[in-house]
Amino acid sequence: MGRVTSRTRAVRVEVAAQGPAQHRDRVETLAVEAPMQVRVDGEPLSVTMRTPGDDFDLTIGFLLSEGVITGAQDVRTLMHCQDEDESGSPTFNVVDVALADGVARPGAASARRTVTSSACGVCGTASIDAVRTTGRYDVAADPVRVDPQVVAALPDALRAQQKVFERTGAVHAAGLFTADGEVLCVREDVGRHNAVDKVLGWAAREGRLPLTGHLLAVSSRAGFELVQKAYVAGVPVLAAVSAPTSLAVDLAADTGLTLLGFVRPPRLTVYAGAHRVAGPPGVSGTGQ
Amino acid sequence: MGRVTSRTRAVRVEVAAQGPAQHRDRVETLAVEAPMQVRVDGEPLSVTMRTPGDDFDLTIGFLLSEGVITGAQDVRTLMHCQDEDESGSPTFNVVDVALADGVARPGAASARRTVTSSACGVCGTASIDAVRTTGRYDVAADPVRVDPQVVAALPDALRAQQKVFERTGAVHAAGLFTADGEVLCVREDVGRHNAVDKVLGWAAREGRLPLTGHLLAVSSRAGFELVQKAYVAGVPVLAAVSAPTSLAVDLAADTGLTLLGFVRPPRLTVYAGAHRVAGPPGVSGTGQ
Repeated sequence: MGRVTSRTRAVRVEVAAQGPAQHRDRVETLAVEAPMQVRVDGEPLSVTMRTPGDDFDLTIGFLLSEGVITGAQDVRTLMHCQDEDESGSPTFNVVDVALADGVARPGAASARRTVTSSACGVCGTASIDAVRTTGRYDVAADPVRVDPQVVAALPDALRAQQKVFERTGAVHAAGLFTADGEVLCVREDVGRHNAVDKVLGWAAREGRLPLTGHLLAVSSRAGFELVQKAYVAGVPVLAAVSAPTSLAVDLAADTGLTLLGFVRPPRLTVYAGAHRVAGPPGVSGTGQ
Repeated sequence: MGRVTSRTRAVRVEVAAQGPAQHRDRVETLAVEAPMQVRVDGEPLSVTMRTPGDDFDLTIGFLLSEGVITGAQDVRTLMHCQDEDESGSPTFNVVDVALADGVARPGAASARRTVTSSACGVCGTASIDAVRTTGRYDVAADPVRVDPQVVAALPDALRAQQKVFERTGAVHAAGLFTADGEVLCVREDVGRHNAVDKVLGWAAREGRLPLTGHLLAVSSRAGFELVQKAYVAGVPVLAAVSAPTSLAVDLAADTGLTLLGFVRPPRLTVYAGAHRVAGPPGVSGTGQ
């Protein structure tokens, strides 16, 4: 397993309003970024830059999001190839997946790449339709309701487990929570999509899909692909510390997923699925 | 051209320490995220989620980073396909590139995807070697020196031009500056890689490659791919508002690029190429 952080010599420069800048040598801690290749039955499928660790969960979450598998049962074995770098040390940067019998091998291009190559053109609607085709769970039907106080506590709960961020400031986090705010799994990665894949891969391996009644929290913005990943895993509520994008909101509204953005206590904004967010007494939900 | 922002109905929730949360209906502004497909001579090459606008620059910057082209002269024509969405409106989400005579068509997999499929395994060193092969400019030989006061002013200079961020909080920015801090080009995008591609594509179209003596500033972290893009365009100094990753530092050190992180006045940290950063009197550079 590769290291999650590394140390480097650096120079801290203090800029003065007047006069020359001051330089001080320092040792800084960095978040490790390293390529990981996923091979399916020996065939290269994708390469992602990720923080080493939880590579099998990352792989499962990625394959799930791409629609290659529907759960951990579709994977027969996972192994790190014994590839070596030029000094002969194992890199642990290749994960080979053997799919279970009867599971279709992905084509040369993964789902993400083919989604918009249809003759009808490339647009948000086509992207949303492609995700709906991949999804197997009726997220819209999930009756869970969430308490704003529980949601408002998620960023601090995430941060409390962000060991790598604390030392590097360079990684995103994703966390899976119960509707009561109990933390089940937090993962960090230099890529926010990877952090989510690691969490959802963990959940798949634990036999927890679909993630009915759960909350997924991310330390980042919420783009289209993060909503896609949540939806495909059956997560009804996605809470992001920062802003959502237009297509993320469209996908959430279309699939019946509750999308919360700018979750910064004491405020948060509900961009879709507001009926799940408990409101003032006598109001059963603000609808949308 | 698609819109850069869109409006949506949302619910702002105020969480009270005691008692029920308050809900207020609001109209929020979102950064638009929409898929864009690049086709080379009619063949789909890639799909990226991006903020519409400057699509041709994005395409040129992307092809440059991937090593498909070495400059704008390698592109014969660029056009938006007249693809339509289901309502018959043009989407402007497909850019078709005709390469100039003699420019090799990219393979089925782009450089980024094949870079690590060699039998020798996948590791940071192999990734760095692949970038070095793509690069045409001797960035290490660039004699430019930068004044920390100029660098410290870059984040504010970027922010001053971030029209979309101001309204949405959802986009990253990249900016190209002279060594004196004069702003040449700032671009915003939901993807930080796209923002850089748009800036570098602009520079290529303007015939400014290699970008000897220039500074590239980003509102984000600095990962491996951002250093790669800077290096391939001949940029000697990359300044990031947030943290670099381990592989970004390795690539910068290996290619002779100056990498500045956590540029947050009055401080900044030099992770590689410190000899370019002016120091106290009598010190010609802190070396590294």
